[in-house]
Amino acid sequence: MASDNKNWITAADVARHAGVSRSAVSRTFTPGASVSEQTRQRVLASANELGYQVNIIARTMITGSSNFVGLISTSFDNPFNSRLLVSLIHHLTLHGFMPLLLNINGPHQLEPALYKLLSYHITGVIMTSGAPPLALAREYLAKKIPVVLVNRYACLPGIDRICSDNTQGATQVAELFVEQNLRQLAFIGENRHSFNTAERWRAFRAALPATPPVAHFCDRDSYQCGWDAAETVLRAQPDLEGIFCASDLLAMGAMDYLRQSAQSTDVKVVGFDDIPQASYAAYSLTTVRQDTDRLALFSVDSLLKRIENFSRPSLEQSVPVDLVRRCSA
Amino acid sequence: MASDNKNWITAADVARHAGVSRSAVSRTFTPGASVSEQTRQRVLASANELGYQVNIIARTMITGSSNFVGLISTSFDNPFNSRLLVSLIHHLTLHGFMPLLLNINGPHQLEPALYKLLSYHITGVIMTSGAPPLALAREYLAKKIPVVLVNRYACLPGIDRICSDNTQGATQVAELFVEQNLRQLAFIGENRHSFNTAERWRAFRAALPATPPVAHFCDRDSYQCGWDAAETVLRAQPDLEGIFCASDLLAMGAMDYLRQSAQSTDVKVVGFDDIPQASYAAYSLTTVRQDTDRLALFSVDSLLKRIENFSRPSLEQSVPVDLVRRCSA
Repeated sequence: MASDNKNWITAADVARHAGVSRSAVSRTFTPGASVSEQTRQRVLASANELGYQVNIIARTMITGSSNFVGLISTSFDNPFNSRLLVSLIHHLTLHGFMPLLLNINGPHQLEPALYKLLSYHITGVIMTSGAPPLALAREYLAKKIPVVLVNRYACLPGIDRICSDNTQGATQVAELFVEQNLRQLAFIGENRHSFNTAERWRAFRAALPATPPVAHFCDRDSYQCGWDAAETVLRAQPDLEGIFCASDLLAMGAMDYLRQSAQSTDVKVVGFDDIPQASYAAYSLTTVRQDTDRLALFSVDSLLKRIENFSRPSLEQSVPVDLVRRCSA
Repeated sequence: MASDNKNWITAADVARHAGVSRSAVSRTFTPGASVSEQTRQRVLASANELGYQVNIIARTMITGSSNFVGLISTSFDNPFNSRLLVSLIHHLTLHGFMPLLLNINGPHQLEPALYKLLSYHITGVIMTSGAPPLALAREYLAKKIPVVLVNRYACLPGIDRICSDNTQGATQVAELFVEQNLRQLAFIGENRHSFNTAERWRAFRAALPATPPVAHFCDRDSYQCGWDAAETVLRAQPDLEGIFCASDLLAMGAMDYLRQSAQSTDVKVVGFDDIPQASYAAYSLTTVRQDTDRLALFSVDSLLKRIENFSRPSLEQSVPVDLVRRCSA
């Protein structure tokens, strides 16, 4: 058992107890290292008896590389972000990584966060938020620390990118509206400079040459912004027939605005993400489902590949999306 | 600038460059340590020029204590959990801690998770999920690692607990129903063995001696469970007038079931948590708001106090809640 102070059982204690060398203990706890079965059993028995824990901090100091992966996100309490986060943590943990989570509340916090992570000898970083300052990304790459972006854009050799197929999704929404013969259409997006919003808007417009939709951009991805945006587009276009919202939160706000605005119960609404609330009966929102599990799987996979071979070419991987048809359109 | 391999700039490099001792560099980057202003400036200038990052891993090795705090939760994508998580990360970060996040998917994962954290020399652990296995909690305490539980129960000296005031919240709901003269009442809770569910049910029932409510317990805290539970209680009690649900997710499911069940549009529903979706117009759910920011603040505060003085008595702190009146009741 551990003593009652902060002195931890060390590998040397285990070696003494088992009557083997310090190196035999180390090899027993290093995946893939060579050690005889007999020695391994003795070490494990002593480790168990003494309550020995592999000291990951010491291992990091000795090997110079850690199992820490920086996970930079924004507003974890956004339902889509939190689902993606759960998937990323799951896949990182499966591969023995320990995520260091930084929640960024604005672009100005991104650079300090990336600097902070450096002090933990992180072995890679996955960013689901914001565009990395290029100078800092270069510094990461110079230190051979892989940088993976999820649903984000950055043009820098060495950075890998995993993105949902925005073009496929927005095109499917346009096709649904065409199939339903809707002609007065609008697009509601988060910030116009957001990579995803821009891609979804571009593909939606391109797929509707005969009935060009109007676009409205908000400040943020929120229910209230969707509500306000619906009010604005409906005032500008009273005969509106369909709205494509670049996120489910925007779509749910838009639906609730439309419902309480008596004249517009017929407007079809489609979202993007497929957060759990989209399927609730009060919304039954037709939406484009992002495959968060596959986004996470591909991200961790590309991290592993770059750890193995840092100088491989940049990878851009697109994850297919699905139009989920419910009652809202 | 850093070189293009994984050799990090060390404190010794900075000391050489600045023409000071290694210890002067260390003192410069240790909060509260004594170092002359002139030396400090030289060290900072060299550190800046060389791109030196404080090496937290090395500092952990040297001092034997880290700034890692284990954060054990479950289903981060539950809207209440993810809000609490954001608050906990915020307050931990403010105090210079780095959270190590473990997402537990079942009671069987709790013990391995706690063992895993030991290998990171964590300086404390905050658990928002599950009851810690007592033997393991004792091992933590033997190592003088503080354990803080949020909204959870465990009777073990040395463990600190921060809980929302379930009794206050459930009593306020009962008083609201009495004020509205509702007499046919039901309670829908998550798992009957959940600490919070049990406390809320006990207080709700105790506050309604004249009109004892019936209780129904589900498997999990989910929208679908709320839907199913509402169907069950309404079948058993067709003249039902009010339902208190132990969480907003359950309440939203119950509301949607009631709405599509033509005979029961009059049933009042109250939730617990005040997740963002509770305020959406489609629900406008009357609910008991938990103060996630204060839960997190108190948790980190009690962690700090126990780090300072490990042998202080166990602390139990109750965080007040608020009844938020909306349209559902």
